[in-house]
Amino acid sequence: MSASSGIDEREEGLILQPKFDASGLVTCVATDAATGEVLMVAHMNDAALRKTIASGEAWYFSRSRNALWRKGETSGQTQRVVEMRVDCDQDAVWIRVEQQGAACHTARKSCFYRKVEASDGGAKLSFVGAERLFDPKTVYRK
Amino acid sequence: MSASSGIDEREEGLILQPKFDASGLVTCVATDAATGEVLMVAHMNDAALRKTIASGEAWYFSRSRNALWRKGETSGQTQRVVEMRVDCDQDAVWIRVEQQGAACHTARKSCFYRKVEASDGGAKLSFVGAERLFDPKTVYRK
Repeated sequence: MSASSGIDEREEGLILQPKFDASGLVTCVATDAATGEVLMVAHMNDAALRKTIASGEAWYFSRSRNALWRKGETSGQTQRVVEMRVDCDQDAVWIRVEQQGAACHTARKSCFYRKVEASDGGAKLSFVGAERLFDPKTVYRK
Repeated sequence: MSASSGIDEREEGLILQPKFDASGLVTCVATDAATGEVLMVAHMNDAALRKTIASGEAWYFSRSRNALWRKGETSGQTQRVVEMRVDCDQDAVWIRVEQQGAACHTARKSCFYRKVEASDGGAKLSFVGAERLFDPKTVYRK
């Protein structure tokens, strides 16, 4: 995939050239800046990426609601971006954030509140770090 | 999205029910078990997920090569899985791994070797932790 120069500018250059997928999205991984815990995996379109970079607050694009969305705009559970990185082929970004409260809509700190382990040739799940920080019904009014 | 019971089994249950996308994939985030650093973001199909769970070694599905792939099978840069978690809606998994050498095909420890910062209303990149651990030309014989 190298250019004729032998250097792939997307991989080795210093220009942000996001490789959006067919839906116009890149994957975003948000981790807790203090603990390193993965909080959530979501998507950003071009506008979400620009707004996140410019504002220092995490913006995403919701595939289910088909809408640009500032994290915490409904719940108050905002994310301040401490650092953003982009991966080799620029189809994913990693943000280290200061999470206000819970990242997950289920009111858990992280969306990754279940462990997966091998069991009888298949898999079993178990809860880990699954305490709810608020009542999601009152916050999201579903 | 709740079932009539009021409980969403995919979110609150203890059965692994991956929500594969239209291409049959879930997103996988691999972090360094020791440092918490995000090493890479890749994809797993059903076979890759099963093999990872059963073997304790990371398997992925390459979209560009359209092939199941044991991480490190060409490069020797394998990933031993210390813990796997699944997210709320089961369309993403997080694996904490012991990375042998470099996770990135550019021979860096992590694929996220460039920082993104706001600059003049846009963005600029800078290298961080971008040392190469081997010569990718000799390892991947491109």
